[in-house]
Formats: sequence, structure tokens, C-alpha cells
Amino acid sequence: MESPSTEHPRVITPREASNIAAEIRNLLKAGDHESAWERLSILHPADMGAILAGLPRTSRDSILRIMHPDTVTWMLRQMNPIQAGKVATRLGSQVLTGVLSQANPVSATRALMRIRLPQAREVSESLEQPMREAESFEFQPGTAGALMVPEYPSVQLAGTVSEALANLGALGDVRYEFNRVYVVDEEGGLAGHVNIVDLALHLEQTPVRDLLTAVPATVGVNTPASECARMLRHYNIVQLPVVTGGRLRGVIPQEFLLSAVVAEDTRQMLQVGGVTGESGEHSLVAAIRTRLPWLTVNLATTFLAAGTISLFESTLAKVVILAAFLPVVAGQGGIGGTQTLTMIVRSMALGEFVGVSAFWLLAREALLGLLHGVWLGVLVGIIGLVWTGNFGIGLVLGLAMVGNMVIAGLAGAGVPLFLRRIGVDPAVASAVVVTTFTDVCGFLLFLGIATAAISFLV
Amino acid sequence: MESPSTEHPRVITPREASNIAAEIRNLLKAGDHESAWERLSILHPADMGAILAGLPRTSRDSILRIMHPDTVTWMLRQMNPIQAGKVATRLGSQVLTGVLSQANPVSATRALMRIRLPQAREVSESLEQPMREAESFEFQPGTAGALMVPEYPSVQLAGTVSEALANLGALGDVRYEFNRVYVVDEEGGLAGHVNIVDLALHLEQTPVRDLLTAVPATVGVNTPASECARMLRHYNIVQLPVVTGGRLRGVIPQEFLLSAVVAEDTRQMLQVGGVTGESGEHSLVAAIRTRLPWLTVNLATTFLAAGTISLFESTLAKVVILAAFLPVVAGQGGIGGTQTLTMIVRSMALGEFVGVSAFWLLAREALLGLLHGVWLGVLVGIIGLVWTGNFGIGLVLGLAMVGNMVIAGLAGAGVPLFLRRIGVDPAVASAVVVTTFTDVCGFLLFLGIATAAISFLV
Repeated sequence: MESPSTEHPRVITPREASNIAAEIRNLLKAGDHESAWERLSILHPADMGAILAGLPRTSRDSILRIMHPDTVTWMLRQMNPIQAGKVATRLGSQVLTGVLSQANPVSATRALMRIRLPQAREVSESLEQPMREAESFEFQPGTAGALMVPEYPSVQLAGTVSEALANLGALGDVRYEFNRVYVVDEEGGLAGHVNIVDLALHLEQTPVRDLLTAVPATVGVNTPASECARMLRHYNIVQLPVVTGGRLRGVIPQEFLLSAVVAEDTRQMLQVGGVTGESGEHSLVAAIRTRLPWLTVNLATTFLAAGTISLFESTLAKVVILAAFLPVVAGQGGIGGTQTLTMIVRSMALGEFVGVSAFWLLAREALLGLLHGVWLGVLVGIIGLVWTGNFGIGLVLGLAMVGNMVIAGLAGAGVPLFLRRIGVDPAVASAVVVTTFTDVCGFLLFLGIATAAISFLV
Repeated sequence: MESPSTEHPRVITPREASNIAAEIRNLLKAGDHESAWERLSILHPADMGAILAGLPRTSRDSILRIMHPDTVTWMLRQMNPIQAGKVATRLGSQVLTGVLSQANPVSATRALMRIRLPQAREVSESLEQPMREAESFEFQPGTAGALMVPEYPSVQLAGTVSEALANLGALGDVRYEFNRVYVVDEEGGLAGHVNIVDLALHLEQTPVRDLLTAVPATVGVNTPASECARMLRHYNIVQLPVVTGGRLRGVIPQEFLLSAVVAEDTRQMLQVGGVTGESGEHSLVAAIRTRLPWLTVNLATTFLAAGTISLFESTLAKVVILAAFLPVVAGQGGIGGTQTLTMIVRSMALGEFVGVSAFWLLAREALLGLLHGVWLGVLVGIIGLVWTGNFGIGLVLGLAMVGNMVIAGLAGAGVPLFLRRIGVDPAVASAVVVTTFTDVCGFLLFLGIATAAISFLV
């Protein structure tokens, strides 16, 4: 029995991909561009693109000179939209224009639509055949308009299964991106959709109207991509029609919708980690732009903490060892607050806690903080006592720990709850904001209690 | 023109869902269970489940008594698998067994397969009609075996389009979960697949062999769910056959694969934030179990920091104000390290940096740390000088800042790179590990330089 699976580019592990990339680098270093391309050419387009993007510019350019423009275009069309965009950014719009202008124009247009670059419009305009169909370049990145494709299967409400299938087939290889055919009425309004499985299972003469299903949701061109991602995650909507004024403007295929989910998860994770923007930015300027803002904000917050400590300078002068315990109380609070924040932000994004009152959540996190605080307080109290031989210091340390863990729970839950209440994405509450709370409160509590009890400590 | 979209449960915003949940709570408080159920019954199953899960137990039970067991089963089958699992956990296996044993047995089996609970086997066994088909209960959660379904469309290699479609149609409403029909040879080996779009577009007598496409990837029953998620993300594989010894055992439908991506992203984000396990855990015990381990690890690390500070007790006794600046140097390092860590962990998960050498990445992050450090160092130097009027303190603060930001970049990149090298998931490098580095090094640098330059500070 023949096994056709060898025809298909093989799926490899990240480690194998790294090894192959290293081989290709070595071949390029030795000047053997042909062998390097031979090694690359048998890979899956997703791996081919990732390896090309990782090469230094001169090596990449030497490979690109060997690759046929149609191959580059094919690669970009086969990759997932986010990765295609990153690879295209690495190639730069000049190289991209050069490649696309020499490739098959239909194929080039589709590749360009897939890339979803802010510069796509610019590249499109500099091509010899301007790509008029690519209406979606007009929309802001991060909106449904920028995710939708203008080519999708549709059929008239008065049509039959046979007409729906003919329209689907006419799309060429784009047809595989869809699992529904949209049904429009005489005025071009969206009447519903027909599942391709149902088209396959019914006779050619069956009226489309008999198979019509309501469309569970539509979006407008300006709907945020994050909302489209939520529809996939929460309602399992895998393909989304984009409608303006009742008329179908385009469709977001499942692949693009999935990319929106991954992009949204990335944005969320990075934002909580204090990075605003794209992951894997190769340029230093871009990396500084995504990280320095939060670092500078954090500087202000650490000086707030420093100011708090300086209020207690005379206490510290009397019992210098207290300074050593400052990071203990503040650090535990910071971790506790970050845990709560991360958990609440993610749960909100996943649509959990619907109808759970903010008061209940705050109470729950405060209680958790208290339980954690008692456990950690007893531990640090004992360690403090053993370390300094001073019962008072152990007690002050333990009490401050209990208090700061409760505050950490309240801040970790309260900040995202407050942001959601005022209509701001809870994920912007980077851990920076929460750790300021726990730092300042931790120092206030610890040094405040120590100052009050100073006669027992000296 | 009739508009059929009103037949379908409406998609609502999270805010609308919260408002409806509040209304339902109020109706239940007033004892009006019938109206509460009326309000709930028109919602999308995803919202219905989320609201039910958020209700206090007695209210939830009073609603469940009104709901027909077939409705509960339908709801669980319509929800995405992760959310269905969470709702089922909230219901508890006793309630679940009660509901499922009274529902349509075929429907109940499918609901149970969808739920993907560790307790699903137990529930299945306690039902009157044991669910023998549900072979997938046997596999470890978090593996391909536990994600796959045993019912999927398939056809013999010698068959025709008409036979493939007949097998697809025989699956009932499960058929909509697939976009491919798998082709098996006489020995039951997987020969390839046929896209449903191609089945729809070809004549009934067309041999399946003519439409056969190679399967880009298969997995085994023990392949981790995280690897299945990577295949969807990186290679755009939306439906994955599970094979043992060349024989097709089951198929992971796109919906389950997508759930695996979302679950994997959640795990990654929570782990970097210091939470091991599920988000949105309602029980306090579960929450403590997912958070206390990292808090306790962190305690050890903060005492390492405390020990570092205590080495410089005599320096601090001479210049007490230095204690106030401790959180400035350590805090900035912590944020910088967390930024780098988050960015690297996410980029690795997305398959970026393929073939980019570890040395290059470390050098890049160290350089970024240096650039950030110089900017922040100048700022803190000036603030320190203005605050204390002591040029020496400003200089020490600035120098320590530059050094600690470089260390933050090296630790943030080095820890995940090291973990990947030894074959451990880089995401387990919670920010806790990296901030220990930056805390200890920050204190060492700042107090070390201050001690060396003590004569200029007093």
C-alpha cells in the first residue's frame, strides 16, 4: 500500500528546527547557498519562514535570491497570518515589493492580504499591478476589518445547493479556508449561512432556503480583534461574517480568527509582565519602545517606596537589622499580588466569574491572603526570632506579613476589578501597579509596627 | 424578508451577561425560580453555563430542578470543552450523575466525553447504562488521548465520494465538528484524508483515492496536549488524527484542539505569574494548592536577599538613608527581568527565535539592559543627589542601577534558555526565580559599591 504522507512537508519539533537552522547557517557561512536552499526547501512553509526570519540579513538575502518569487509568495500564504506578518517585517518592504511584483499577481494579492502589515497598503501601491481588491488594507490593524477577507463563498437566498457549490468551487484554493457558505437576499442583506457539510449531504436541486441556519453573530468593520477572539473562545464561533448596514462586507476565516486569539493571549500575557506590544521584536528600538515606558513608571513607584522607608529613618538607625527584612515583607506581598492579578485577569478574559459579585471576589482574595499570611507570618516570625534572637523583631515581622498578604489579595483583585468597572481592559494593570501597593504598604506596616514597638526591639 | 437570526440564542457582551446574572440572582432571592429560569433559558448555552456556575449552590440547585436533564446535557454539549469541564466541576459529580442518568443516553455519553473531567470515568461508571464507547476516559488528562473523540468520519481507500458522505451523515449532529473524512486502507492503516469541501464538489462516483491528501501530522495517545496546541498554532493544523501502531484510534476535532491552545496559553501565563494550575478555581483549598508552593519558595529567596543586606549592616548603620534606596535598585531589576522573561517564554512558545543562537539572545538582552540601565541610572543618580544632597550616593545608586539592569536582562533570558536546553518547559521559570537573582544582585551591587566608597558617603 502506498503511503502518501511522505509527499507532505514533515512536521518537526522545535529542537529539530533549531538543528536544521544551525546546519543552514553553517552551509551559508561556507558559501554553499545552493545546499542551504536545498535543506530549507523540503521543510514545511511555517518552519521555512521561521528559519528565514532568524537568519542574519545578508544570509537571508542570499537565500531569497535563489528562491523563486512564487515560492516566497506560496510560503507566506501557507504560514499562519501572525507569523507571515513577522517574517514579512523581517524581509522589509523593499524586498517584499521586489518579490511580490515578480510573482503571480493573484497569488501576490492573497499573500499581501494574509500578511496584515501596517505597511501592506504601501507595498500594494508600489507594485506594478495595484491590488484593487485588497479593500481590507483600509482598516486599522486590530479591528475586524483588518482581519476579514473580501473573497468568501456566498449564494443567493433563492439559489440551490448546486449554485452554492459552484460559487464555492470558483474560489480556487481559497475555498478550503471556509466551512460555511453565506446566504444573501436580493438586497444583499445577510440572510444566514449553510454549513458545507450540509451542502455535501444534500441533492444538487435542494433549495438553499431549506438548509439555512441563522448566523449566531456578526461584527462590524471596527469591532476590536479582541472581541472577535472572545467570540471564538467563549461561543466557539469559528468563522465570523463582517457586516455594515446589514450588508456582508467580508468574512474572517477560522485561521485568521485563531490568529487573533493567539495574538490576544500574547498581548495579555506580555502586558501583565510589563511589556506593551509585540513579542519577539528583533529591533532594539522596538524593544526599548515596548519596555522602557513601564520601567520609567516603575521608577516613580520605587521612589514612593523609598520615600516610605525614609519616613522611618530614625527607627532604622536604632535597629539596623530591620533593613535586611524589608525585602521579605515587600517581596512576599509582590508575589501574592501578582498571583492574584494574573489569575483574575485571565479568568476575566475567559469569561469566568460571570455574575460573581466584585465584593465576593475581593472578600475571597482577602481571606486567601489572610490564610497565606498566617502561614507565612508564622514562618517568618520564627526565622526572624532565630536569626536575631529578638522575640519582638519576629513578632513585628510576622504581623506585617499577615497584613501585607491581605493587602496583596485586595490590590491584586481590586485593581483589575476597578479597571473593568471603568471600562478599561483589566490586562493593562501590569504587575507593576500592584507591586507598588504591596511595596509601599509592606514598608509602612513593617516599619510602622516596629516604630510603635521600638522599646521592645532595642 | 424573514430574518432567521432571531431564532438563534443571542451573543451578548460580558457586561450584559453580568447584568442578566444579577437579575437572575434577584429573582432567585425573591423565590421566583420560574422567572429566573425563563430569563436564563433564552441565553446562549455558553452564557447559560457560565451564569449557572457563578450562582451559589442552593440557587443553582433550585434552577437545575426546573431544567430538563436533556437541556442540561444539551448545554454541556454546546459549550466549549474547557468551560463545560469547569461548569461540571461546579455541579459536582453527584448532581452530574443524576442529570446524565435521566437524559438521552447517546446525548449523555457525548456530553460526558466533552466534559473532560478527571471524574468523568467515575460518573460514567455510576450511570445505569455504562458508557462503553467512551474509550477516551482511559487516558491521562493533558494528553492527545484525552482530547480525542472515538466517533469521526472515515471511509475505505477503495470507496467513493458517495460512501464517504454516507459515513459522514451517519454521525448525526457530531458531523459538524469535522472538516475532513479520514481514509483507511484494508488493514485499518491511515492512508490520508479528504477535505469535505472536495467531497462536496465532486461527483458521487468519484473514487476517494482521486481526492486523497496526505495527513500533515499525526500524534500518539500519549502526545502532550501542549504539543497538539503547538501544531495548531505553528502549522495551522485544525484537526488532528491520533494513531497507534499505524492504526487510527481517534480524532481531535478543531474545537477540542482550540481548547487545548487556550488552556496552554492560560497555563503559561499563570505559571509566569507564579500560579501553578487552573485559573478561576472556586474552592479555597484548590486556590491555596496552586499558589502557596511558589509563595513558600519565594520566602526562601527573600531571606537570601535579607542575608545579602545583613552582610552590609555596618555600612547601613553609618549611612541609614541607603536603606531607603534598596527597593529602587532591586525593584527596577525585578521589573526588567520579568519583562525579558515574559517576552522570551512567549516567543519560545510561538516558535520564534528558531535558529537564533542563545549567545545572540543573551547578548541582545544584556545590551538592552545596559541601554535601559544607563537611562534609569542617570535618572536615579540625579534624584538620589537632589534628595540627599550627597553626590556620592547619587553616583553609587546610578552605577548599581546600570549593573543590575544588565543582570536582569541576562537572568530574564538565561533562565528560560537554560531550562529549554535541559528539556524543561521554560514557562516553569516563574518570575519568582528571576526576581531572586535581581534582588540579591541588586543589593550586592548597591551596598557593595557603597561599602567600597563609604568614605565619600559619610
